[in-house]
Amino acid sequence: MATTAMASKVAVAASSVARPSRALRAVPLRASRAGRRTVKVQSAVELDFNTKVWPKELVNFAEKQEYIIRGGRDQYSKLPEAFKGIKTIGVIGWGSQAPAQAQNLRDSFKEAGMDTKASCRCGCYACCACCGRCGRCACCGCGVAIGLRPDSPSCEEARAVGFTEADGTLGEVFDVIASSDMVILLISDAAQAKLYPRILAAMKPGATLGLSHGFLLGVMQNDGVDFRPDINVVLVAPKGMGPSVRRLYEQGKEVNGAGINASFAVHQDATGTAADVAIGWAVAVGAPFAFCTTLESEYKSDIYGERAVLLGAVHGIVESLFRRYVRQGMSDIYGERCVILGGVHGVVESLFRRYTREGMSDEDAFKNSVESITGPITRIISRDGMLGVYNQFSDADKKVFEQAYSAAFGPAMDICYEIYEDVACGNEIKSVVNAVSRFGRWPMGKIDQTHMWQVGQKVRAERKEDQIPLNPFTAGVYIATMMATVQTLQEKGHPYSEICNESIIEAVDSLNPYMHARGVAFMVDNCSYTARLGSRKWAPRFDYVLDQQAYVAVDAGKQADAEVIQAFKSHPVHSALAACAAMRPSVDISVGGDNDDTGVGAGAARTDFRSVAATVA
Amino acid sequence: MATTAMASKVAVAASSVARPSRALRAVPLRASRAGRRTVKVQSAVELDFNTKVWPKELVNFAEKQEYIIRGGRDQYSKLPEAFKGIKTIGVIGWGSQAPAQAQNLRDSFKEAGMDTKASCRCGCYACCACCGRCGRCACCGCGVAIGLRPDSPSCEEARAVGFTEADGTLGEVFDVIASSDMVILLISDAAQAKLYPRILAAMKPGATLGLSHGFLLGVMQNDGVDFRPDINVVLVAPKGMGPSVRRLYEQGKEVNGAGINASFAVHQDATGTAADVAIGWAVAVGAPFAFCTTLESEYKSDIYGERAVLLGAVHGIVESLFRRYVRQGMSDIYGERCVILGGVHGVVESLFRRYTREGMSDEDAFKNSVESITGPITRIISRDGMLGVYNQFSDADKKVFEQAYSAAFGPAMDICYEIYEDVACGNEIKSVVNAVSRFGRWPMGKIDQTHMWQVGQKVRAERKEDQIPLNPFTAGVYIATMMATVQTLQEKGHPYSEICNESIIEAVDSLNPYMHARGVAFMVDNCSYTARLGSRKWAPRFDYVLDQQAYVAVDAGKQADAEVIQAFKSHPVHSALAACAAMRPSVDISVGGDNDDTGVGAGAARTDFRSVAATVA
Repeated sequence: MATTAMASKVAVAASSVARPSRALRAVPLRASRAGRRTVKVQSAVELDFNTKVWPKELVNFAEKQEYIIRGGRDQYSKLPEAFKGIKTIGVIGWGSQAPAQAQNLRDSFKEAGMDTKASCRCGCYACCACCGRCGRCACCGCGVAIGLRPDSPSCEEARAVGFTEADGTLGEVFDVIASSDMVILLISDAAQAKLYPRILAAMKPGATLGLSHGFLLGVMQNDGVDFRPDINVVLVAPKGMGPSVRRLYEQGKEVNGAGINASFAVHQDATGTAADVAIGWAVAVGAPFAFCTTLESEYKSDIYGERAVLLGAVHGIVESLFRRYVRQGMSDIYGERCVILGGVHGVVESLFRRYTREGMSDEDAFKNSVESITGPITRIISRDGMLGVYNQFSDADKKVFEQAYSAAFGPAMDICYEIYEDVACGNEIKSVVNAVSRFGRWPMGKIDQTHMWQVGQKVRAERKEDQIPLNPFTAGVYIATMMATVQTLQEKGHPYSEICNESIIEAVDSLNPYMHARGVAFMVDNCSYTARLGSRKWAPRFDYVLDQQAYVAVDAGKQADAEVIQAFKSHPVHSALAACAAMRPSVDISVGGDNDDTGVGAGAARTDFRSVAATVA
Repeated sequence: MATTAMASKVAVAASSVARPSRALRAVPLRASRAGRRTVKVQSAVELDFNTKVWPKELVNFAEKQEYIIRGGRDQYSKLPEAFKGIKTIGVIGWGSQAPAQAQNLRDSFKEAGMDTKASCRCGCYACCACCGRCGRCACCGCGVAIGLRPDSPSCEEARAVGFTEADGTLGEVFDVIASSDMVILLISDAAQAKLYPRILAAMKPGATLGLSHGFLLGVMQNDGVDFRPDINVVLVAPKGMGPSVRRLYEQGKEVNGAGINASFAVHQDATGTAADVAIGWAVAVGAPFAFCTTLESEYKSDIYGERAVLLGAVHGIVESLFRRYVRQGMSDIYGERCVILGGVHGVVESLFRRYTREGMSDEDAFKNSVESITGPITRIISRDGMLGVYNQFSDADKKVFEQAYSAAFGPAMDICYEIYEDVACGNEIKSVVNAVSRFGRWPMGKIDQTHMWQVGQKVRAERKEDQIPLNPFTAGVYIATMMATVQTLQEKGHPYSEICNESIIEAVDSLNPYMHARGVAFMVDNCSYTARLGSRKWAPRFDYVLDQQAYVAVDAGKQADAEVIQAFKSHPVHSALAACAAMRPSVDISVGGDNDDTGVGAGAARTDFRSVAATVA
């Protein structure tokens, strides 16, 4: 269980901690912790934290209150104090998060006057005196260095954005770990699972281990061990894939506070300053606001969320809707077709009707499924919440929405619960570790070469943004699944800040815009292996359950369920989301489409994807 | 690890075993057994067993030899000796297997002269002397009684086939367990997981616990406990769902040896006679031949097999093929359509072509996907193996088969490995237990109400068996997936008898005929909860992977891979399957279609399906 009552912990100064024996690198858990894990997330008020540097703010999320920290560029002046004693930050890996976080940190530190070559604040210029080109100051840091295998193909990309062996900001993994005061571990989850004993053993006593995902804790729970006690263990988990974290930070250079929200956690506080460091990290990667969680709550909600509406579900939804619309269209499509064919001979008409089944064209089906979600639905939810979508429908369209919502909510809940419980009991973590070990034989295949996504490319090429239909059936199915994602997290005891981010905000402000720009793979495969595997695993489950349960019910004439709709309308998540929206930056993410490289390329989003076995990428 | 070297075990007479303390009902495993489990299946020759009653036969399966036992009605005369000392068999539950096994055992015992009311072999008629109506003889048994919750809806069905409270052959679960010399535990896997401590504690010392699935061992491995040492633990796992076990046994009344093959295992031999009992059980439920395995090998191959080609994969395959054929047909379909439309105006023709995309009609697509597999492909494999299907294609069709096979084999292997490893590490077992506990809120939904399966009903109504197409593309995809199921089991070290049964024989001789008769739910949902859940989970994965990888490759013009095809043609499984086929009974299963109740009804296959939480059904 994560340590959130940090104030009660005895602070141990970094310098007073002796180097641990190798046996200490991982500590056996008590038997009860290694067994079947119960889900226990502290309520919001309990998620307090102890910081002298950062001003806490108490915010109402629906019926509950939570402390948050507000970020923004005007807060960067506090970074030197937050990172006091941390001269080198080693960012390990170069996957989805590392390029984004490393660049953001470097840029923020520079803006905060912590780039010593440019502006050593104490005036010693010690770094220049010792080697003349390292770019890191031995007294008032904070330098950012990347750790990679020397033969990793990622080295070239890191160099392309200015991390080089020459100035000491690119080095071998374990060299960088051993020489860093803070190690931000952003290698793949599976590589963490494999390498954590070596990594922990290599760290300096009193150093800070930074994770962007609680996955490693889940692995260590499966293995029955805990972290060595003489290091800080903190988490900052940006609520978006790496390319979003970088893209919004870049856009935010012109707007104070644009960026991706993050959760943070202090799992272990050996120095008494872990919260200051964790929050500083969140602010420096560009979080407009950051909320407190625990490692366990984070990994459960995160691994779950990406399998549900964030990636897996939205993929499954659009596949099932596209097929449905091609086969049978919407009820109002049929009339239109009859007029077109009015003058043609009856036999041909009946043949036509038989073969078209009154379905939409491929292009129309794509617009009414994918485009509708990634365009108007996403945009409206981002600004006005889920009720905002519902409220602007006509009465007739509200009926369509309600029928679709009522039919989809239950089946979506069924799958959401299955995912959550598979994550919570350790199954998904074990499956991911197993899957990565098979990459050598079967790398992950492409998911966007099918007919539907080829249609999408054509649709995007001819897109007129303001003519994308806001389809009420699509909205009903999508928002029902989003609400199922919310409801499950709520029933499992997660705080609203986490619920809103893992079910809604990450979808509409970070992920869906990528699918809008270049299709499903551009969204899914710019995420972590854990997310990519999870999306491939659960998308088809949502597809089938909607097809077999929800659409069948609608086609059988099942009408909206007043109770389900009332529960939707009166759900407390709407006001919690509004509280988040009030803190939302004024900038929407902007990412290049098929023929535009804005936000795409070295250190940003990718268009080619690989899957490698669990080594340090 | 299962005890197969029984001969080395000290035999303990039932009467000399003291009643264990409650603490003994489950014994903690050594730490190494409770942790991550490696797959270790003994090679065939090691799978020896010690029986004085049954004649062992050494059979060549490809390059390996295995001992088997041949069943058949001419073997029933050995049953009294095999079941010596067992006067009452309690069959617990009334799911897929219990109605079949209980009725078969009862019928076989009667045929063997062990139904004492009719023919007490020793002439004492002690049972009649004591109560006059129990139907069980105290001296030379063997009576079969069903154990159910008194308020279970299944009681009515058990009474309908002659198990009644009145004659002592229907009773409360724990009463039946406590009074039985052999307990055949056929309650749902999840109910076993929940109730096993109580069940084990209730058993007589020296009694025999009979399982038809090693699932419980997997649960106990997850829990870190083992069976109490003073009971026998044996397994007989018929290689087909319950209704098949009953149906073929009934058909076999006129043909010696018709029935479903079974594997058997002796996990624990407290009395020194466990193998005699296990084999006797296999023979009495109608196995034409039985082969030896271990509980661990059985549960891994069984849970895996039903998720792969037996249920999950075949469902996913036909869904993906149906869609494909509706959208784009086969290349040769297009020409035919053009002729039909030859005289119609060009605009209409192009519209027609746009909307039909040169696809097949729904009915043709169903015939070329589902009907092709469940009809001719299944029939040919059953008689002449997989190469039998390939060999009767024309050269042109062989090319289509080879292209489809080459494209599908790799993606199918990827999913097969994922399934196997998720089963082997305990994940699937944990997921099933979790899923069943959610049934109260979300019962399993119907899988056959979608458009495609409605089309199927119409197709079946008009079916002309000899006009079902043998589609080479369909055959290529299906047989590639069957071979992937085989290849994975082989690489994981399973013996050929198990491989052939869990990948091929169970599909073509037991399961597919049910899909042929009434569609997918009639096959899937007449199986256990574990199988029904697994099929729902993995069918969509096969669907997506074939759609995203295999069909895309074919459409991109990728040709057959000579190496893959050569590996198929020269695979040793073909000769192993031929060895099995030589022992196959001469009867094909016959089960009633949509308007025919042959083999359907009380104690046989069902047409209505429910899912209840883990209690004793």
